[in-house]
Amino acid sequence: MEKWIRSLKTNTPQEGFELAILLAQKGIEYTQPSVAIRKKLRPKYSKNPDSLIAASEVIAIHFQTVAAANNYWKTK
Amino acid sequence: MEKWIRSLKTNTPQEGFELAILLAQKGIEYTQPSVAIRKKLRPKYSKNPDSLIAASEVIAIHFQTVAAANNYWKTK
Amino acid sequence: MEKWIRSLKTNTPQEGFELAILLAQKGIEYTQPSVAIRKKLRPKYSKNPDSLIAASEVIAIHFQTVAAANNYWKTK
Amino acid sequence: MEKWIRSLKTNTPQEGFELAILLAQKGIEYTQPSVAIRKKLRPKYSKNPDSLIAASEVIAIHFQTVAAANNYWKTK
Amino acid sequence: MEKWIRSLKTNTPQEGFELAILLAQKGIEYTQPSVAIRKKLRPKYSKNPDSLIAASEVIAIHFQTVAAANNYWKTK
Amino acid sequence: MEKWIRSLKTNTPQEGFELAILLAQKGIEYTQPSVAIRKKLRPKYSKNPDSLIAASEVIAIHFQTVAAANNYWKTK
Repeated sequence: MEKWIRSLKTNTPQEGFELAILLAQKGIEYTQPSVAIRKKLRPKYSKNPDSLIAASEVIAIHFQTVAAANNYWKTK
Repeated sequence: MEKWIRSLKTNTPQEGFELAILLAQKGIEYTQPSVAIRKKLRPKYSKNPDSLIAASEVIAIHFQTVAAANNYWKTK
Repeated sequence: MEKWIRSLKTNTPQEGFELAILLAQKGIEYTQPSVAIRKKLRPKYSKNPDSLIAASEVIAIHFQTVAAANNYWKTK
Repeated sequence: MEKWIRSLKTNTPQEGFELAILLAQKGIEYTQPSVAIRKKLRPKYSKNPDSLIAASEVIAIHFQTVAAANNYWKTK
Repeated sequence: MEKWIRSLKTNTPQEGFELAILLAQKGIEYTQPSVAIRKKLRPKYSKNPDSLIAASEVIAIHFQTVAAANNYWKTK
Repeated sequence: MEKWIRSLKTNTPQEGFELAILLAQKGIEYTQPSVAIRKKLRPKYSKNPDSLIAASEVIAIHFQTVAAANNYWKTK
């Protein structure tokens, strides 16, 4: 796979959150590499509240990692 | 997306908990950006106890992050 | 919402566990603010073993936070 | 509720694991205080592999807490 | 229960991973002590992808604990 | 089982993420060692969005471990 991440460092908590979202998506992409299949699944899970909550949980776990990597952006 | 968070710092544990709720909601918003669809889903999951427990879990994970970022509000 | 938490500090692990339970409940309350609806859901999930295990998981996550905030009550 | 825990300290990892099990059970007991109902649920979830895996997950989360509280029993 | 663990220390990450698997299994064993019942359940969950992913998650949580206990095998 | 991991150290966050994927897969392999059965399950879960999200969650948990083991690749 091409290079998609260089560092866990971000300038702001919001960029860190968006990196967490990318990490969550990449976990899905590596497991299901077909863009076509993923596109077909999207309308399904994005209207299912339990799937959305589960996706939000994966983001939360990655956000813990990114926040720790940035020392919680404490010096900002 | 517009700026919705500036810092993980909060004055009190309660504000920290409310920030954790915001983070959990944002994870859902980024995944399903349509306000209309999210509004339609709300009555469904907010009356399903398992969905509520799952939402509470996402909040719990984010609260770990926010609490660590605030050194558990120990000096207060 | 009125003030419902002042500190993550507790005197004992048991009080810390009870605070973790409160935090888990608050995650549900913020998501479903209606007391009437929550009361109606209670008999349902409190007799479903999978819901009980899931509730216990949310408590476990919060207990990690509370225990860390109290340095695991090590000096007691 | 009567006193059921005094400390997170245990002499061995195995006792720590057993404390984690107690904590997982207590999360269920506080949510469903009726012994009669819990007894009725037991045969159901204890024969459901997904429930057993979920119970094992709650134990795993508590074991993280207990292990950290004991500094991973490193000096033993 | 007989003694089944003495220490969280392992020589290598792979042994640590295998200890995490043992811990995940023990969480199930304590909850369902009957070997006969567990054997009957095995063919069921071991062919269900969602059960396998859930089992892998429990292992992942325990591996966090074991890895921390070994300081991530950094000096090796 | 043959040796499949030597260290949690990786040169980059991306290699760390790919190690997290390997760890998630190994959790499944140890639980279901049959290659034939795993191959049969793959088309099923890889087209189920909830399974994909769950797999992404296991990866996220392992990525926390790998990131901590690499001190978040901070010096890079």
